[in-house]
Amino acid sequence: MNRKGILIVISGFSGAGKGTLMKKLTADYDNYALSISMTTRGPRDGEMNGREYFFVTKDEFEERIAQDGMIEYASYCGNYYGTPRAYVEEQLENGKDVILEIEIQGAHKVKEIYPQALLLFVMPPSAGELYRRLKGRGTETDEVIAKRMSRAVEESEGIDTYDYIVVNDKLEDCIAQINAIVGAAHNTPGCNEEFIDTIRKELKDLLKGE
Amino acid sequence: MNRKGILIVISGFSGAGKGTLMKKLTADYDNYALSISMTTRGPRDGEMNGREYFFVTKDEFEERIAQDGMIEYASYCGNYYGTPRAYVEEQLENGKDVILEIEIQGAHKVKEIYPQALLLFVMPPSAGELYRRLKGRGTETDEVIAKRMSRAVEESEGIDTYDYIVVNDKLEDCIAQINAIVGAAHNTPGCNEEFIDTIRKELKDLLKGE
Repeated sequence: MNRKGILIVISGFSGAGKGTLMKKLTADYDNYALSISMTTRGPRDGEMNGREYFFVTKDEFEERIAQDGMIEYASYCGNYYGTPRAYVEEQLENGKDVILEIEIQGAHKVKEIYPQALLLFVMPPSAGELYRRLKGRGTETDEVIAKRMSRAVEESEGIDTYDYIVVNDKLEDCIAQINAIVGAAHNTPGCNEEFIDTIRKELKDLLKGE
Repeated sequence: MNRKGILIVISGFSGAGKGTLMKKLTADYDNYALSISMTTRGPRDGEMNGREYFFVTKDEFEERIAQDGMIEYASYCGNYYGTPRAYVEEQLENGKDVILEIEIQGAHKVKEIYPQALLLFVMPPSAGELYRRLKGRGTETDEVIAKRMSRAVEESEGIDTYDYIVVNDKLEDCIAQINAIVGAAHNTPGCNEEFIDTIRKELKDLLKGE
């Protein structure tokens, strides 16, 4: 079978462990490529252009939008954030399964443009565990944690609009579930048109030859 | 996560190796249950009621139809063949992934009644290999083989109507693909409504409690 890349959108509550998951997926399996977002906010200490984000000016970002060069974008706190189209399509063409980490609104926009994209929602094993993880980071104030929990309540209403959920309890199990979901997507007829057409042609030829 | 059974329809060309696949799946993994068809044809030598088929009279079969007790059925060479509903629903309820081996028309009927059913089409690695397998059985006349190949040509037109294809080249690989597809189906929101509702409720309770 041929190997055309699958587009995978990963969303999930803050504290669900999306970052760890994606690092592990891209480190351990070379079929995955991580899409890098573009932003107009300035780089923070330790951030590198082309690693955390592509850092561009507002003019550059708006030119991309005008040229239909962004799959999805949003404005947040006066800055643009978005997914550049070129990198994603190039990687898909090369057979890579491309992962985008975006919010629910962005996820729906991606699905409109790429109906075959897989929308995955990463869940904590329980709400209590989510709270403990946010608290356990030790870097956020109670106010920030309360905001994230409140946002989780809102986001939880949209889970049904995703194709799949994965529960991030044991990292290895969660990775196995994602691999199974992506593997299954490679077995759809739409991902194997060439192979199916070849079999059809061969069957007809064999029948004629008899 | 809870474990509600998935309904799996397996179709494929004669000679693709569906029988071997299903024997291996049900022998090695206890999440699967094989649905047993009902027929009005008489048992052949070595066939046992409740193993190969449920053997019933025409009246019994027609009563089942009248009581909406068959998921799908067809008449072939003057005999009825069909899938009794009760066994399938009982096994699904028990959390079993129930496999039906049926033809494309039956597959579509099942999908109408159970939209979440997975339709899998088993493919040979090539048409030449299919021909070699049919020929290699040594039990069928050239005429029968030609008929099967001609039927394969017809059936190949319907592959796109299936949710997934699996290529039966190496048995182990094919089994792994089916397990991944069924595993993925267990990760859909529809299969995890209870878990999602629990998380929603817990999140709201936690937020109120703060």
